[in-house]
Amino acid sequence: MDAISVIRTKRDRGELTPEQIDWVIDAYTRGEVAHEQMSSLAMAIFLNGMNRQEIARWTAAMIASGERMDFSSLARPTADKHSTGGVGDKITLPLAPLVAACGAAVPQLSGRGLGHTGGTLDKLESIPGWRAHLTNAEMLDVLRTVGSVICAAGDGLAPADKKLYALRDVTGTVESIPLIASSIMSKKIAEGTGSLVLDVKVGSGAFMKHLDDARELASTMVGLGTDHGVKTVALLTDMSTPLGLTAGNALEVRESVEVLAGGGPSDVVDLTLALAREMLDAAGLKDADPAKALADGSAMDHWRRMITAQGGDPDAALPVAREQHTVTASASGVLTSLDAYAVGLAAWRLGAGRARKEDPVQAGAGIELHAKPGDQVTAGQPLLTLHTDTPEKFDYALAALDGGVEIGPSDTPFEARPVVLERIG
Amino acid sequence: MDAISVIRTKRDRGELTPEQIDWVIDAYTRGEVAHEQMSSLAMAIFLNGMNRQEIARWTAAMIASGERMDFSSLARPTADKHSTGGVGDKITLPLAPLVAACGAAVPQLSGRGLGHTGGTLDKLESIPGWRAHLTNAEMLDVLRTVGSVICAAGDGLAPADKKLYALRDVTGTVESIPLIASSIMSKKIAEGTGSLVLDVKVGSGAFMKHLDDARELASTMVGLGTDHGVKTVALLTDMSTPLGLTAGNALEVRESVEVLAGGGPSDVVDLTLALAREMLDAAGLKDADPAKALADGSAMDHWRRMITAQGGDPDAALPVAREQHTVTASASGVLTSLDAYAVGLAAWRLGAGRARKEDPVQAGAGIELHAKPGDQVTAGQPLLTLHTDTPEKFDYALAALDGGVEIGPSDTPFEARPVVLERIG
Repeated sequence: MDAISVIRTKRDRGELTPEQIDWVIDAYTRGEVAHEQMSSLAMAIFLNGMNRQEIARWTAAMIASGERMDFSSLARPTADKHSTGGVGDKITLPLAPLVAACGAAVPQLSGRGLGHTGGTLDKLESIPGWRAHLTNAEMLDVLRTVGSVICAAGDGLAPADKKLYALRDVTGTVESIPLIASSIMSKKIAEGTGSLVLDVKVGSGAFMKHLDDARELASTMVGLGTDHGVKTVALLTDMSTPLGLTAGNALEVRESVEVLAGGGPSDVVDLTLALAREMLDAAGLKDADPAKALADGSAMDHWRRMITAQGGDPDAALPVAREQHTVTASASGVLTSLDAYAVGLAAWRLGAGRARKEDPVQAGAGIELHAKPGDQVTAGQPLLTLHTDTPEKFDYALAALDGGVEIGPSDTPFEARPVVLERIG
Repeated sequence: MDAISVIRTKRDRGELTPEQIDWVIDAYTRGEVAHEQMSSLAMAIFLNGMNRQEIARWTAAMIASGERMDFSSLARPTADKHSTGGVGDKITLPLAPLVAACGAAVPQLSGRGLGHTGGTLDKLESIPGWRAHLTNAEMLDVLRTVGSVICAAGDGLAPADKKLYALRDVTGTVESIPLIASSIMSKKIAEGTGSLVLDVKVGSGAFMKHLDDARELASTMVGLGTDHGVKTVALLTDMSTPLGLTAGNALEVRESVEVLAGGGPSDVVDLTLALAREMLDAAGLKDADPAKALADGSAMDHWRRMITAQGGDPDAALPVAREQHTVTASASGVLTSLDAYAVGLAAWRLGAGRARKEDPVQAGAGIELHAKPGDQVTAGQPLLTLHTDTPEKFDYALAALDGGVEIGPSDTPFEARPVVLERIG
């Protein structure tokens, strides 16, 4: 077995054998297959695809490259959620304590943002004192005492995926359904959750721009989870415009706390409740009532305990950016479009995201929205507020918004899009 | 400009801009673009192709990555030959001194063998004392005093190609017409020859298995040479069976000397003369008579002076392998096939070639042929003699020959293939 013959098989549109897949993943993890060999294989997979059998074996091989966690000692059923990433997607923050308040255990291993979509850990790190890195024992302890934990995945889980993900990021091989599906599912299956709800984003601000691609990605992942004994469902959700009214780390924490307090923007509340119901249903807790847990303060109580257990102060003031700039409506009428990608890119340029893995993020940077598509606006009224510690970036961020905001005549017909587009599973 | 956007352009079937090509070749040479980024771009080029404009710019950028040689101080016109590589292809050895004897200067920068095709430098190194590595000043001196020189290309010529060639070799991205054409032509144009004859091999023992592919490669290279002011023509030549009666380093030197002495196998003589005529014609020496230079000993005289000038002893005994094994005809009849790839692979396994760049080769190893396709053979007569210093490899070499030798009934019609199939230019 050698790397070149595996590369040639896929390059020449052949099907990789189980033995080829097991060998190449293991040899890459051990460093016997070089980065430049894996990247040419990744490009061949990107362009020539993998069938369901190949994707399943590829996923299994990445799981087998590391340790698997085991939550069977917990009294509660486990439920996890994964989002493919979007602009303003802070849903994990209210969702994890909410589902814990309803009786499930939520082991939420999360990542950092790269590119125009934010990362859950970056958001939570804007809370003074909060720690993302826990040992396995600490993680299990928070899960046992609070019911939910949001923390960084350890190095032992699917190390092959960790290497391959970093490689894909720099070699133009990210947006491939076989590679995305196997990456997400290898981590989630190795993590040991009993059930999993996938939030597959569709639209300008997501990896998947078209419903067909999102549907294929979702059904591939649902199949992989089910084959590995994880009860898996997927919701396809809209990412043509940002979720809620904020994009940026501390700004999104603030909005999440509003939702936990019973308020917050309706799209964030609706999606949080829809995902909570799916998670509770998958975990076998069909009688739980997440709307009640939001209303009666029990979700907020779990949030406060979770933040505190990880060293954070839930009452501390959140960081605020040094400078603000307001964008106003250029005309009166209906806001017909507020593009998710444009807002995400602008927030990233303001300092909310990072260009390289080792870059820091600004806790206070980001964008506040004062209107959403479908709203009537008046010329001169504030539409967006930009926040940053580096005001020299305002022009660069404003350029990203160019063409991303559209206002039509007041009588322009506007059909509101539901947040949840489809359910697969 | 960044590597990922260049990769994405080609990945998504776009045309690379001149700026993208110049940047990526320069940045790769400097190490700013990483090997894993160039390998994913190479695979995208392999699968999605490059058009003529892209190939021309890619070639120009690789030339610009290093120095260009200049032979304008020589009194004679320069002519060079390049073969895409075949089994038993020792033509450079008799050809360079022959063309020099006819009045042209032949600056033949050559390479080493990798895989089943031999390398000119490996062959000449079986001559005791002969040196492949010359300084530019030494090279020019041999060229001026003898008229021909065969030596290793210096590190300064097309360093981008040197890096990319080594990368393609380990990443399954070798057999791509745009990448082969730009690699060959960047080196040859940087070398500074005034005219160039390309020997593009077609058949089982060559990179190009089909005439259509060889034709496309040849016309691409002729176009590139012409655009850069190098008078370029190509011959498409047969590589379905080995050239001559030997494959292996010292064995091929011996056969080359036979040709220079006025003898040798007719296919080697024919191809040597055909290429010599093209080179002399391209160099403007239309009245030269290479057949006469072979017959009157002047080509042999130039060979002896060239070998001596590079430290070699043209009268020294050539190395002989420690062990021999003879393969006999299994039946009587017509030898209908003696497959070039099978013979090349067997010779490689006997030690004539190398698996990795740093491996040594055996000077005496290789294969002698006692019959050629079309010959009548008798059961039990010797067909091939295998030579090696490592007789434990005989079985491994014999396995490569399996299916490569075919004998039909005596009355099987056999149509002899000409060595030169087509001329392009």
